[in-house]
Amino acid sequence: MTPKIVRQIAELREEIAAYRRGNPDGQVGFVPTMGYLHEGHASLIRRSAGENGLTVLSIFVNPLQFGPNEDFDRYPKDERRDLAVASSAGANLVFMPSVEEMYPEPMRTKVTVSEVTERLCGASRPGHFDGVATVVSKLFHIVQPDRAYFGLKDAQQVAVIARMTRDLHMPIDIVPCPTVREEDGLALSSRNVYLTPEERKQALVLSQSLAQVPGWIEDGMTEAELAVRIRGRIRSQPLADIDYVEIATYPDLKQPAPDRPLRDSNVPLLVALAVRFGKTRLIDNVLLFPSEVK
Amino acid sequence: MTPKIVRQIAELREEIAAYRRGNPDGQVGFVPTMGYLHEGHASLIRRSAGENGLTVLSIFVNPLQFGPNEDFDRYPKDERRDLAVASSAGANLVFMPSVEEMYPEPMRTKVTVSEVTERLCGASRPGHFDGVATVVSKLFHIVQPDRAYFGLKDAQQVAVIARMTRDLHMPIDIVPCPTVREEDGLALSSRNVYLTPEERKQALVLSQSLAQVPGWIEDGMTEAELAVRIRGRIRSQPLADIDYVEIATYPDLKQPAPDRPLRDSNVPLLVALAVRFGKTRLIDNVLLFPSEVK
Repeated sequence: MTPKIVRQIAELREEIAAYRRGNPDGQVGFVPTMGYLHEGHASLIRRSAGENGLTVLSIFVNPLQFGPNEDFDRYPKDERRDLAVASSAGANLVFMPSVEEMYPEPMRTKVTVSEVTERLCGASRPGHFDGVATVVSKLFHIVQPDRAYFGLKDAQQVAVIARMTRDLHMPIDIVPCPTVREEDGLALSSRNVYLTPEERKQALVLSQSLAQVPGWIEDGMTEAELAVRIRGRIRSQPLADIDYVEIATYPDLKQPAPDRPLRDSNVPLLVALAVRFGKTRLIDNVLLFPSEVK
Repeated sequence: MTPKIVRQIAELREEIAAYRRGNPDGQVGFVPTMGYLHEGHASLIRRSAGENGLTVLSIFVNPLQFGPNEDFDRYPKDERRDLAVASSAGANLVFMPSVEEMYPEPMRTKVTVSEVTERLCGASRPGHFDGVATVVSKLFHIVQPDRAYFGLKDAQQVAVIARMTRDLHMPIDIVPCPTVREEDGLALSSRNVYLTPEERKQALVLSQSLAQVPGWIEDGMTEAELAVRIRGRIRSQPLADIDYVEIATYPDLKQPAPDRPLRDSNVPLLVALAVRFGKTRLIDNVLLFPSEVK
């Protein structure tokens, strides 16, 4: 069934309230996105549709989370295709507010999450996670879902949102969902559309090097050794310009003990990277649980 | 009827959910306090009880909003009397969590409100309003009330909470309520109990000088003239040690035009002061609407 498009906060609240009145035991699932939907987003919507009576998808390119030299102005958009994806994946309501609807006056309130935002994208995109935490907090208060679905390609974002939700006692289950990849391994991203054919080809080095990580950890590598190995592998591609390659505990995103083989970790490990190909910055990661590396 | 005492978040949520299940159109009012209740708190509870089917009172002395040299450790407590006040004013649930229940792990998330926190208590108590905004945000997510009641003696706090609620789209009506005073004019405060008889007597200068403010404004005083006049009046009491005397637009808490008579303001004005008597810091204010000073 075609989802209903809603552009006003008040109307969205009324739609959700009507659902809840009609379904006292019904649950509401929420998938916040920036649009230009791909199969990764579709997998979140399908999961929500399977677990909740009502699924709300939001499409909002949030200016607050973009830095001054980032791609806010050229972030890709395709409303018609987004609605087709939303519809076939099972969204019931698609919330597409304008910037004015979300920010009717200058924001004076900011939600900040510290420590888990210090490294990785938090370090290379100053203010980014303040913008994410603040807009997600706004969206959570507008939708008031029972569950919210986030893709693990943005693993640090999942950690930030989960921490915010817990610290502020928001009554919402945060559901992390696996990264979806192309057949050849490239992690799906709305930004992949920016890549030239040659950049696209060389970008495969990201998923390929991450695929080797479990083996390298099994071999007994420390954090520094693993980072060096991944960087070397990525540098084999001449168009790759590394922003960061980092290994962190998950979900706290602290530095693992530097001298100890990573295979001895008793907490999950995130191996994450951000690499530019031309003007396009791609991120990817692998999340490893202790049982998987021993 | 005696209110039910609840100390655990999960139990409070269950009580409120049970009320909502049984009363689909019922509304929930919330009065957050730090306890040691006085008639000012009682007036908030009574108002909530009159406007909502269920009134939740919270009593929590929030360490996050106290500075290192403030009175967190000696903040007055009297659980038995608080319950008597809560009961006779009509509270249904009294939430009295421990610090561990509210802060089970180190907080990484902070809610900050800028601009409206720059002056007045925001300037003299650094970090105070971050602590207030953060804990109120937590309490709002725990209680999920329809309305929340705050006393205007803390006028800046009301402005901060109202701004946070609006900026983050929290679905809660913030209801500001008038300051309650002793017969002789002293604004009710849990901290009045700290005052010696002589300090208590001299502290009357606060409400007395504020009572003259409308007349002084009518006379055509500018902001600077009014501040000088109030300071002079307060200094007539030898134990009074002025922290601040400030005039601000309300609720934005900006400086009014410096050269213009305040009576020409077309926005509400807040005249607020904080004055120490011995170890006790008292605040008081008067809020004036344009129609009242012309």
